[in-house]
Amino acid sequence: MATIRVGILGATGAVGQRFLQLLEHHPYFVVTALAASDRSQGKPYKDACPWRLPGDVPPAVAGLVVRAPEPPLDCDVVFSSLPADVAGPLEARFAAAGYPLVSNSSSHRMDDGVPLLVPEVNPDHLALLGEPQRRKGGPGKGFIVTNPNCSTVMIALALAPLAREFGVEAVVATTLQALSGAGYPGVASLDITDNVVPFIANEEEKIERETRKILGRLNGKVSGVAPAGFAVSAQCHRVNVVDGHMAAVRVKLSRAAEPADLRAAFASFTGPPQELRLPSAPERPILVRDEPDRPQPRLDRDAGRGMSITVGRIARDDVLGHRFVALSHNTIRGAAGAAILNAELLLARGYLGS
Amino acid sequence: MATIRVGILGATGAVGQRFLQLLEHHPYFVVTALAASDRSQGKPYKDACPWRLPGDVPPAVAGLVVRAPEPPLDCDVVFSSLPADVAGPLEARFAAAGYPLVSNSSSHRMDDGVPLLVPEVNPDHLALLGEPQRRKGGPGKGFIVTNPNCSTVMIALALAPLAREFGVEAVVATTLQALSGAGYPGVASLDITDNVVPFIANEEEKIERETRKILGRLNGKVSGVAPAGFAVSAQCHRVNVVDGHMAAVRVKLSRAAEPADLRAAFASFTGPPQELRLPSAPERPILVRDEPDRPQPRLDRDAGRGMSITVGRIARDDVLGHRFVALSHNTIRGAAGAAILNAELLLARGYLGS
Amino acid sequence: MATIRVGILGATGAVGQRFLQLLEHHPYFVVTALAASDRSQGKPYKDACPWRLPGDVPPAVAGLVVRAPEPPLDCDVVFSSLPADVAGPLEARFAAAGYPLVSNSSSHRMDDGVPLLVPEVNPDHLALLGEPQRRKGGPGKGFIVTNPNCSTVMIALALAPLAREFGVEAVVATTLQALSGAGYPGVASLDITDNVVPFIANEEEKIERETRKILGRLNGKVSGVAPAGFAVSAQCHRVNVVDGHMAAVRVKLSRAAEPADLRAAFASFTGPPQELRLPSAPERPILVRDEPDRPQPRLDRDAGRGMSITVGRIARDDVLGHRFVALSHNTIRGAAGAAILNAELLLARGYLGS
Amino acid sequence: MATIRVGILGATGAVGQRFLQLLEHHPYFVVTALAASDRSQGKPYKDACPWRLPGDVPPAVAGLVVRAPEPPLDCDVVFSSLPADVAGPLEARFAAAGYPLVSNSSSHRMDDGVPLLVPEVNPDHLALLGEPQRRKGGPGKGFIVTNPNCSTVMIALALAPLAREFGVEAVVATTLQALSGAGYPGVASLDITDNVVPFIANEEEKIERETRKILGRLNGKVSGVAPAGFAVSAQCHRVNVVDGHMAAVRVKLSRAAEPADLRAAFASFTGPPQELRLPSAPERPILVRDEPDRPQPRLDRDAGRGMSITVGRIARDDVLGHRFVALSHNTIRGAAGAAILNAELLLARGYLGS
Repeated sequence: MATIRVGILGATGAVGQRFLQLLEHHPYFVVTALAASDRSQGKPYKDACPWRLPGDVPPAVAGLVVRAPEPPLDCDVVFSSLPADVAGPLEARFAAAGYPLVSNSSSHRMDDGVPLLVPEVNPDHLALLGEPQRRKGGPGKGFIVTNPNCSTVMIALALAPLAREFGVEAVVATTLQALSGAGYPGVASLDITDNVVPFIANEEEKIERETRKILGRLNGKVSGVAPAGFAVSAQCHRVNVVDGHMAAVRVKLSRAAEPADLRAAFASFTGPPQELRLPSAPERPILVRDEPDRPQPRLDRDAGRGMSITVGRIARDDVLGHRFVALSHNTIRGAAGAAILNAELLLARGYLGS
Repeated sequence: MATIRVGILGATGAVGQRFLQLLEHHPYFVVTALAASDRSQGKPYKDACPWRLPGDVPPAVAGLVVRAPEPPLDCDVVFSSLPADVAGPLEARFAAAGYPLVSNSSSHRMDDGVPLLVPEVNPDHLALLGEPQRRKGGPGKGFIVTNPNCSTVMIALALAPLAREFGVEAVVATTLQALSGAGYPGVASLDITDNVVPFIANEEEKIERETRKILGRLNGKVSGVAPAGFAVSAQCHRVNVVDGHMAAVRVKLSRAAEPADLRAAFASFTGPPQELRLPSAPERPILVRDEPDRPQPRLDRDAGRGMSITVGRIARDDVLGHRFVALSHNTIRGAAGAAILNAELLLARGYLGS
Repeated sequence: MATIRVGILGATGAVGQRFLQLLEHHPYFVVTALAASDRSQGKPYKDACPWRLPGDVPPAVAGLVVRAPEPPLDCDVVFSSLPADVAGPLEARFAAAGYPLVSNSSSHRMDDGVPLLVPEVNPDHLALLGEPQRRKGGPGKGFIVTNPNCSTVMIALALAPLAREFGVEAVVATTLQALSGAGYPGVASLDITDNVVPFIANEEEKIERETRKILGRLNGKVSGVAPAGFAVSAQCHRVNVVDGHMAAVRVKLSRAAEPADLRAAFASFTGPPQELRLPSAPERPILVRDEPDRPQPRLDRDAGRGMSITVGRIARDDVLGHRFVALSHNTIRGAAGAAILNAELLLARGYLGS
Repeated sequence: MATIRVGILGATGAVGQRFLQLLEHHPYFVVTALAASDRSQGKPYKDACPWRLPGDVPPAVAGLVVRAPEPPLDCDVVFSSLPADVAGPLEARFAAAGYPLVSNSSSHRMDDGVPLLVPEVNPDHLALLGEPQRRKGGPGKGFIVTNPNCSTVMIALALAPLAREFGVEAVVATTLQALSGAGYPGVASLDITDNVVPFIANEEEKIERETRKILGRLNGKVSGVAPAGFAVSAQCHRVNVVDGHMAAVRVKLSRAAEPADLRAAFASFTGPPQELRLPSAPERPILVRDEPDRPQPRLDRDAGRGMSITVGRIARDDVLGHRFVALSHNTIRGAAGAAILNAELLLARGYLGS
């Protein structure tokens, strides 16, 4: 398969660095352009920002000069992790200029016509883009595909098999989110050492609405998705963990089910990424652990190379009916890895490449 | 007022040390006996265990020799924070021997005839003990009064004004609990650094059943409390915080209410400890903070000298109707301070002293 | 004694907030003016920045409007914790305008004619200011007095009795420094969670040169201090602790001594603040702990209301001769409290007030 | 090459689990026997203890039944990470029974005739074992080879090129050590959260004496090593880091040298493991980083798959002459990986196998 040239917007941020790490040995995607909205423009990447992940900056990108996040960029597809305050118009400009843009930013997630994609959950939402061939080649043919908020992706993944097999009527999710979700420098150490912060700006709203779009149905119009009919309640907390978002979830199902039925639904869940053996797809999107004290961020975040979520503590709940705990690597399955998997599906479905 | 002589069971543990710290300058209670179930028996307290709170062991108890936790002890009232695996029969022996016993342990909380007391919430449950005078003096006249689990006390305190003013139909509580709640040595640092543990043994069950007993009604029988009729769902997590339990709570109320109505109910709530100006009573049992990112353990746990809980983030909830976040110092209002306040109410109501 | 009106430069920072907390109930000093170099100018203090210490902003300053850090300010003495990049010229302007300025910033510490003061250690260095009466009143009579870097103050305090009784020939200090030493937002949580950073900008240099000035001698010239003759080696690390700097110190003494001799010298050390019973002076500047695992930041930082340093692990050292570990509250004895104690000594010596 | 069958003593501990993880895909060594001194004896390993590293217990050992740590064991070589209080006699029994025993425990490190081995530093110390062929086969032919304390190994590695090229006259090392160094459960979270503990039992003594043995010379007698002639001073601290020991080191050299000379000596250092391309040998034993804020535990501990140490902040020192900071993964290069590398060298030199 021919190589696809990738440009990264927001390359100097926490998710940008994760993009570069995950793409270092990718079979199809090669990073050919880097851009950032900060003062690093014009510098070789290795001098533009300190590398803040273990190990060293991938040698292949160390010398790439950081550009302004504006078209044109020397690439076939654009991955964006621009900050929310600038992503909206900049991403739109790339799409307007004909680039396929795969975004981790929140700006366009709820837009009509923009898929909010979890490849195992709602691959049919790609139909919002129209026929692949319409998207091939040049100006006016760009598009935007988004991945969800870092907590939403695991909640949506966990709900997907339940919605399919039992129906979902209400969801109550309480999150304990990692520091890397706030980017860098992000959370001040004085705010989180020996502490918890019960607030993440806009996070509860994002989880509540994005979950319903992901699990919603195409409504027949070219541009639209009818959100799922169930209510979602989210309360979000920042905790003193480097990587790995956790969610304590209660769910009201439409049909009676035993905890063992939920377990089976989680464990057997797969989707097109598994069928297509996409390079970043984990063997199983949802791992179930039966120990009473799992999942845990430090022990489970890297499962499936950070692309599997882990579910545990499946039990009856006196108020909602059932409950469980989910965990996901927030900058891999919750951000950079999610976008890469989206791009891999786009490639497999014919939306990328010539 | 005459001095009441206090014996502490479990004096070498984390809650035991907090008892000693809080009682150091108490106007009525003076510690005259220390006991523990561990190998410290026979040693002066200062040599029996390292003092693990900031500062030094209170001089007045440093020389007291640690005894076995069995009657007789040289005291008028016994405070117990014995480990759950030994508390049950040992506490019962003290009560049988005629001692008033105020316990922080879980063994007898759900027993018929034993008040599970939060002085601002259910002071009427003291009627389970019968008339005060029946309890005065000597063998056969001892009794047990318990305080709730360290998370339950804040949930019950927060629910009390809501139950009173709006009625409660269902409660969903998700906790983020501090390390000191597990005692010492308690949680291994390797289990909690850069991590969260979504499991605390028996904790979810305790919250679910104790909350309903505290907010239940005397059922006319001498020995009984009919639990409150609402369902409670608890999911519990250990987080990397020294002191201060947090709970994210959703509540379904019986009557329509605005968030501002809940706020007013919280902020105006008081009870007998405030009316009686009990020494350990905070001016306000529930403080409300309006900043979007409060309460926080490190900033709010010491409010009201650790005896006020702090509530924030009061809002509508799409699934249950309303939600908020509560925070409490788990070894003060959640343990030693709770027991001391219980004892202060017992004294004021005539159950202690000659 | 008449009240002294205090202005705070840098009032919205971490040390600024500590100033306000420590001065809330001060017997002589009352805060009448607040200034900051940031965008908070023009706002009442309570709206200018979130209060980041436990509890609430002191009510007496909540309504004070934050000014620009330039003269005139409505006060008799100025306390400064301005950031190093702006402190130099701004502080000089206040001194030139006739204000006594007590600074926690590093800009002027090494200036000729500026005392770098630890009241128990080098009170004689106040002679650099000339006669007190020369400093009384109005333009041209202002001056600057500085306190040391937050690590240096504890190293200098610990060395003072050793220098006095045994002579000091070389000092090797390795620090483990708390997060609050970097101000707010300061250290990013992603940089310090599950981590240590072996670098604090300019810190090693400050410790090496400030220690020698503090322990140096007035050299007969009006403006000068001859630095102490011993070499100092400092290696500095940031660790994941909220408050409390620790230093592992080896020292080469001029005369033979047993560890017990060092212990006695530490424990008996006092100075003018103790003799004058200055309000912020701890009963003992140096507390000695004999447990093998002390001092510890969380247990010992608040000793003497944060104004005592704690020394432990006094032992022989195969390379330098002796060693010990010292600990100090870095924003109290190491910053705001140090400046306040300096001001109290200035007042007692006649340099403040009319 | 034929497979060597390995038995692990202390298999359920923190270092034991690291042994199993590192040996999972080893080219020569296959784990055939597990033993532990705790109550796990008689259980299949997967039920004997929770797996506390990320991921899952290696499938090949999950079913092995845990034995008592006594001969005979079904293996060709024994790796030991038994607790210090039981290791001494148990390890001696294995050696007496003819087993080659490679130990991470401290009991026999200072014994005459027992190599304290760092393969890049003192491979010649294997001569203490006599001729390899004397060691081949059966009763009376067993031996013990030890690796150093987890901090000592990095100090010795860093000193080795300096000793070789410049001579070493004195060493002052101050450590900041990770939690995993204390095993499991090890350090209580209440002791280390928001805290530092300036004490690790026996650690300072171990570093001071082991470093001198490793860098000492065979003294001509069959059984002996003359310790290096320089003095070593160690002060040790436990910090809130999961993995990765750091040491701030000052060194007095015998010959004049520029920091750049030290840098070159570190970076070019190699030994037999590199020449022999031993499977666990890192390409470079010492990595040098030039950023001002490196090494850091979280970013550098996994360098060289945990087998490289990282050195940074090389500079002049006013007291000792030179200084630097070193970092090493304490359970890989500092424990299990060290023992495995030792065994690989033993195999290459003919001491293992038939």
